[in-house]
Amino acid sequence: MKQDTIDAAAISAAPHTLSSHHVADIVELLNHKGLEEAVQFIDRLPDDWAVEIMDQPDFVWACEVMEELPAEKSAHLMEHMSSDRVADLLRWIPEPKRTELKDLLKPDTRTGIDRLLTYPHNSAGSIMTTEFVSVPADWTVEQTLTYLREVEASRETIYAIFLLDPGSKRLVNVVKLRALIIADPKASILSIAPTYAPITANALADREDVARMIAKYDLLAVPVVDTTGHIIGICTFDDMIDAMIDEQTEDVQRMGGMEHIHEPYMQIGFMEMIKKRGGWLCVLFLSEMLTTSAMQVFSDELEKAIVLALFIPLVMSSGGNSGSQATSLIIRALALQQVRLRDWFKVAMRELPTGIVLGAILGVIGIVRIALWQELGIFDYGEHWVLLSITIGVALIGIVTFGSLSGSMLPFILKRLGFDPATASAPFVATLVDVTGIVIYFSVAWLFLHGTIL
Amino acid sequence: MKQDTIDAAAISAAPHTLSSHHVADIVELLNHKGLEEAVQFIDRLPDDWAVEIMDQPDFVWACEVMEELPAEKSAHLMEHMSSDRVADLLRWIPEPKRTELKDLLKPDTRTGIDRLLTYPHNSAGSIMTTEFVSVPADWTVEQTLTYLREVEASRETIYAIFLLDPGSKRLVNVVKLRALIIADPKASILSIAPTYAPITANALADREDVARMIAKYDLLAVPVVDTTGHIIGICTFDDMIDAMIDEQTEDVQRMGGMEHIHEPYMQIGFMEMIKKRGGWLCVLFLSEMLTTSAMQVFSDELEKAIVLALFIPLVMSSGGNSGSQATSLIIRALALQQVRLRDWFKVAMRELPTGIVLGAILGVIGIVRIALWQELGIFDYGEHWVLLSITIGVALIGIVTFGSLSGSMLPFILKRLGFDPATASAPFVATLVDVTGIVIYFSVAWLFLHGTIL
Repeated sequence: MKQDTIDAAAISAAPHTLSSHHVADIVELLNHKGLEEAVQFIDRLPDDWAVEIMDQPDFVWACEVMEELPAEKSAHLMEHMSSDRVADLLRWIPEPKRTELKDLLKPDTRTGIDRLLTYPHNSAGSIMTTEFVSVPADWTVEQTLTYLREVEASRETIYAIFLLDPGSKRLVNVVKLRALIIADPKASILSIAPTYAPITANALADREDVARMIAKYDLLAVPVVDTTGHIIGICTFDDMIDAMIDEQTEDVQRMGGMEHIHEPYMQIGFMEMIKKRGGWLCVLFLSEMLTTSAMQVFSDELEKAIVLALFIPLVMSSGGNSGSQATSLIIRALALQQVRLRDWFKVAMRELPTGIVLGAILGVIGIVRIALWQELGIFDYGEHWVLLSITIGVALIGIVTFGSLSGSMLPFILKRLGFDPATASAPFVATLVDVTGIVIYFSVAWLFLHGTIL
Repeated sequence: MKQDTIDAAAISAAPHTLSSHHVADIVELLNHKGLEEAVQFIDRLPDDWAVEIMDQPDFVWACEVMEELPAEKSAHLMEHMSSDRVADLLRWIPEPKRTELKDLLKPDTRTGIDRLLTYPHNSAGSIMTTEFVSVPADWTVEQTLTYLREVEASRETIYAIFLLDPGSKRLVNVVKLRALIIADPKASILSIAPTYAPITANALADREDVARMIAKYDLLAVPVVDTTGHIIGICTFDDMIDAMIDEQTEDVQRMGGMEHIHEPYMQIGFMEMIKKRGGWLCVLFLSEMLTTSAMQVFSDELEKAIVLALFIPLVMSSGGNSGSQATSLIIRALALQQVRLRDWFKVAMRELPTGIVLGAILGVIGIVRIALWQELGIFDYGEHWVLLSITIGVALIGIVTFGSLSGSMLPFILKRLGFDPATASAPFVATLVDVTGIVIYFSVAWLFLHGTIL
């Protein structure tokens, strides 16, 4: 937003001018510069500023800067960055550089980061931060506030304070800072905690599920606990917003029929682009070849009634479109948990009448179109044009119904098999429906036109 | 999650047992009950609990409960609910009930809500809350903390404190509660504020833009200011997460080629469903009719070389698929502001070579397929099968390139015209590409097969 008013050269010369800018604006500026410039800029900055910039998940050159800077400098910055961010960056830094950098870290820092690195990508464990505030549950409000003042600078958030059982150190409850502020300083911290059990996440939980918890319970941070009930980290709301945006990108790209691309559009390498798009495109192409095979089966019919070919794209695309509608509805309903796996039959029973009605509407339009063109003399569909128009109408009902049904069931099937339902892209559904569409179309044609033009 | 352990009947009988549940879990339970049950449940609850449940944006029966309860009871609850939520509910309550309820509110409450109602749906103004904390910028930290303790209960958040110029009352800066906690009580509140200008939003800003600000700057709340620089409300991070989820649903449904449906899938009325899906389906169907018209133009060629018809679905769907990939990439890049309107030419210059390479890959596969089938004797494409396979290969390059180009440009055009780029659904792109695809296909065929089979 304000990026144009930031002059990188001037800032490098006089780093103290940085404080008049929000770090996110500086990051946006750096993202638009080349790698070389970004490295030089970070290198010249005072450490605290360099750390703050490197900590921003939006900073696209962070990995590369880490690799390009002298290893000692990188390690020094990493010591002061938040551990979840460091783990995230290390994940993408190739060996042997990764080991070189890790070996330069203090043993404590390294252990923490190694643990984060063991969690699968996109799990709560992989995005959590270990810089949270926990206090024994038998402390008073005053003790807690005093402790907060001491540790504030080193914690990602202090708005949620985690209460641990003094003996077992298990997570007992969570207190919000706002409750602490208004409480009597002499009161026990446990007395101002909510009466319901704390909302927690498992380290292996999908980050999407954690985001849903944050949204549902309006939390500032979700504690991540291990199987023994000990808190091992927290996922904060701002990490979750970043995760949600990332998931959304992934879903939109998948729904568009391609693999997820992490980099911003302008920074994707050409070969990377071809790979991510070409893979699915080839799979779809190979599947779509079945349409040719199907049509070959009906080539005799086609030869006799070439007029049937004219409507193939129209009839088939309608199946694909209705399927793509049903798929996107169900993908979203599943993601929001409005619909669960066990509801598949209820959904099918909704899609069946919907498909029939939608197909009938299109069918009527199709019949009117043929009648109009015929009567107005725009095109001659032959003497059996009435039968032909009925064929189109009935085929549309069949194909749109099949499209709605299979489009709505596909996300369920994918989810059941353990895939992300959003993989059910519009192109995927269209391909599925196309082949069946041809079979339905020619079968209906045979039914109505057998003995006349077929 | 824990919904199954909540017994609605038991709670109605003994409302104090509610406190062992998180309000979000109770809401989830109520959502799965019928309207009647929800109304009775809310009616029997103590007021503070009823208010908290009605305040949850996820509570789907809130509007209906408002209408069904005695008007005095509804008005009483509304007095204690957050003003943004009340405005949101009133927006959907039909007249004359809406006026009846509003007339029962205290004049102050009514004025605040009337102002919120004047802002367009989905604008920052329409989702902001007016329950924020502001203090004169010449106060001390101690004064501010004392004031916070007084007003805490009536404010949606106290984690961000807005500093106003003591004279003009304009917004000067924002202080985070965590900074307040660690500061010297005698210090001036302004001395602990950040040195950069506060991030603010206009009341008419789209909520998507406000969500982006929250994500970019890691804010707990964005202040909404009027044109004179006075703060009129705040958008909190949890409202924004709800808004983001809603926007995402809208985008996914639009991309699936249908109108946005607000209700959960299982609660959409049948006619509503037909309307929201049928509208776009008809538009797409009418546009796709151009494929029939295009094929009618080439019906002579088709008659001469019926073999050409066999590949129409294959060749056309490839154009639609590559277009849908390009569209979803650009929709996302635009939404994340990785790409701006002025970058359209740069994008076109990336998509052009991408399309050519992807088309060439599919082209080679297509040629191999025809050669294989011919040589293996699976199908006989005639004596000019080599020319035919070249036709398919070249047509694929043309169509995939055209698909990538037009798919990537469509979101730009929509955005330029003031529409949401996500309206560029996969079905929309496929339809656009289909018609041109037929023209390209038959033109290439004419070029290569003229004089042989054409």
